[in-house]
Amino acid sequence: MRKILVIGAGQSSSSLIKYLLDKSISENLHITVADMSLELAKKKILNHKNGQAITLNIFDDFDRNNAIKNADIVVSMLPAHLHINVAKDCLKYGKSMVTASYISNEMKALHQDAVHKNIIFMNEIGLDPGVDHMSAMKIIDEIRTKGGKMLLFESFCGGLVAPESDDNLWNYKFTWNPRNVVLAGQGGASKFIQEGTYKYIPYHKLFRRTEILNIDGYGKFEAYANRDSLKYRSVYGLDDILTLYRGTIRRVGYSRAWNIFVQLGMTDDSYTMENSENMSYREFTNSFLAYNPNDSVELKLRHYLKIDQDDIIWEKLLELDLFNSTKKIGLKNATPAQILEKILKDSWTLKENDKDMIVMQHLFGYELNGKKHQIESSMVCLGDNQVYTAMAKTVGLPVAIATLKILNKEITTPGVQIPINKEVYEPILVELEENGIVFKEKEVSYLGYNPEHVIG
Amino acid sequence: MRKILVIGAGQSSSSLIKYLLDKSISENLHITVADMSLELAKKKILNHKNGQAITLNIFDDFDRNNAIKNADIVVSMLPAHLHINVAKDCLKYGKSMVTASYISNEMKALHQDAVHKNIIFMNEIGLDPGVDHMSAMKIIDEIRTKGGKMLLFESFCGGLVAPESDDNLWNYKFTWNPRNVVLAGQGGASKFIQEGTYKYIPYHKLFRRTEILNIDGYGKFEAYANRDSLKYRSVYGLDDILTLYRGTIRRVGYSRAWNIFVQLGMTDDSYTMENSENMSYREFTNSFLAYNPNDSVELKLRHYLKIDQDDIIWEKLLELDLFNSTKKIGLKNATPAQILEKILKDSWTLKENDKDMIVMQHLFGYELNGKKHQIESSMVCLGDNQVYTAMAKTVGLPVAIATLKILNKEITTPGVQIPINKEVYEPILVELEENGIVFKEKEVSYLGYNPEHVIG
Repeated sequence: MRKILVIGAGQSSSSLIKYLLDKSISENLHITVADMSLELAKKKILNHKNGQAITLNIFDDFDRNNAIKNADIVVSMLPAHLHINVAKDCLKYGKSMVTASYISNEMKALHQDAVHKNIIFMNEIGLDPGVDHMSAMKIIDEIRTKGGKMLLFESFCGGLVAPESDDNLWNYKFTWNPRNVVLAGQGGASKFIQEGTYKYIPYHKLFRRTEILNIDGYGKFEAYANRDSLKYRSVYGLDDILTLYRGTIRRVGYSRAWNIFVQLGMTDDSYTMENSENMSYREFTNSFLAYNPNDSVELKLRHYLKIDQDDIIWEKLLELDLFNSTKKIGLKNATPAQILEKILKDSWTLKENDKDMIVMQHLFGYELNGKKHQIESSMVCLGDNQVYTAMAKTVGLPVAIATLKILNKEITTPGVQIPINKEVYEPILVELEENGIVFKEKEVSYLGYNPEHVIG
Repeated sequence: MRKILVIGAGQSSSSLIKYLLDKSISENLHITVADMSLELAKKKILNHKNGQAITLNIFDDFDRNNAIKNADIVVSMLPAHLHINVAKDCLKYGKSMVTASYISNEMKALHQDAVHKNIIFMNEIGLDPGVDHMSAMKIIDEIRTKGGKMLLFESFCGGLVAPESDDNLWNYKFTWNPRNVVLAGQGGASKFIQEGTYKYIPYHKLFRRTEILNIDGYGKFEAYANRDSLKYRSVYGLDDILTLYRGTIRRVGYSRAWNIFVQLGMTDDSYTMENSENMSYREFTNSFLAYNPNDSVELKLRHYLKIDQDDIIWEKLLELDLFNSTKKIGLKNATPAQILEKILKDSWTLKENDKDMIVMQHLFGYELNGKKHQIESSMVCLGDNQVYTAMAKTVGLPVAIATLKILNKEITTPGVQIPINKEVYEPILVELEENGIVFKEKEVSYLGYNPEHVIG
């Protein structure tokens, strides 16, 4: 039996492990799931005869070495900064490794060593990064093969609540780390290129500069710009592209309402508030409004941010109980962002039967034989339940598929890699489709811009 | 002759040195002005027979020790972080020292040693900090002496252009470090207290939350909140005060227009812009606006920030040439803030005969025998010319006066100090008045708030 070691049995490992267990008989696999918590690891194995749960403290050198030495290939689903410990042992024992995380500089530095050992360290093969790389490079390569010149690439992704579980005014629930949602977009201006012009959006304007998307069968969505849309410009070979934009998808109207928090200063994570523990939700809101002895918090907020009487934004704020004077924050020395997260969790936590949804869309504009074309490629994945979520499937399945294909020598190019080469993305995309992660492509009319007539 | 050593002959030393030279005959003083630039030091001495200019490299231990050893008292007008080098030598040779800078922790740590040596290290005795401490503590102490209880303290200060030289739509020119003006308010939310409630303003709202002031004879001004209004709460003995606010003064309308730069992201100093050197002013402006092939930069900006057709803000932007497509930035790898500074300098640099103006106002609310009172104390100082500016006078004269009074043993309490005690502020305020730095106090009706009826 070929032995696969999966380190980390958290939420994003469930579909990954299920895929491998399902294949374990036909493919002759033995799956060891290692986690700090034996219980968590056992839950993922579900008594499968080809599975085994073990306790592993990643900082215990002996145990970690032992586990890796005994495996034929290793999957690391640890927090990103811990992969390097696994990678170094994998190098020592000549084992390939797969992760869903952004490639770190430390990881990159192992490239030559990995090539020498003829092993593969495949990174960024989850959802985003991962599925985005593969689905984008497939079409970019196709356009290039037929002689087209890329003019525009826009790419959007979002983790949302499934339509059937979508029962609040924000059309949003936390399906992933809530803290990251609260802090989204912070840390500097967002940068991208449109028709050859660099554009910059400061954080406090980010949620008012959204683009509208349409996904067939699911209606309209919006997206706000990621901080660095240019990150993969060279990696994708798009150095001279005119338009390059990456964004995060939300349901229409979310960002305009979220902007209220940004404007008030509620997403700030840089200072702690006085008396945060005993503060009411209403007092929290009032902290960001000017003092006035006669006006209500409600009217002060409406006036400050110019919220019309009939604006649905107002109902969204009421839904979150932002003006409740009896509910207490209950967090000591908390930042505004921590307090906001707590308030949002009251309303945005998934209920037991709620399902999540992943939405991804790419737009490719190109020129071929003097004509401009545009391709739209969209993927929607719905969660089955709260174990096999859309997030767990879209992150875990590409990891699992890649692992098996490396083990089966269908993917062979050694070194530290991300999945942008045909050898990798082509077979994986095929198998993702078989597992319900399907991109629908269509030609649309060229909706890019007008490069002949740029005013700016 | 008593020997005074003044280290640093920059712009803010001119009135300081003139004051000491003017007093040098009656007071039997010899003034040594030390600077890296002998020429600069000589300019300040103006061949006065009791003055001497010397070259001093502050990092040359021998020369610095020597200069300090030979003096009876030392004034350090160096950049703030360099005072500590001077202070340590002063301690060694038992010399008192005076600075206009914020007291550092390193400086504070010398307190016991200074007390043992019976010398005074007087800090924060310029304008702000300095004149603000003294003029505020005088009235706070008076209120306390008559048994009043402080309810409210608001304090405002600004460096502006004098009315006679005020010839642009912003009613503003750079009279001090332009970079600090561009970055003003950045680095975290502003915090203050109003009627017992902590209030926080995020940077992107700071310039829309101004207060209006009236200064008799000079009309209306506005002020935006300083980052930490609570800094001197304990130092002033105001721990249980209901309202505490400090702000920066501008002419009315400045902040609303400045907010345009903030909203666009032009004051950001955290990243460098692509191709900044060859960018035109117009391209710079366009970098912060959405791409559109058909609309002008002007209309995009008006629409984005909702600037009405007849709004004077628009004329203010035109005055700065923000839409000029031929003027080039000419700065390599510049941040938005550096570029904005360059653009503003075109318009806001003082002309040869321009004069500056310092404005300060304090509001004191207090309760006495069950009645609420309010005192307004205001000071306006105009520059004589571009050497003896209002800034040089208000920063330098209190330093000079304190230096002489320490030398004359009129101020005697040893240790590391700031000028908040009557022994210090009383005689200095009297002499500042003789030199034209006059606070006009008046009782006004209690315009504080209504602590009996706080909604929030």
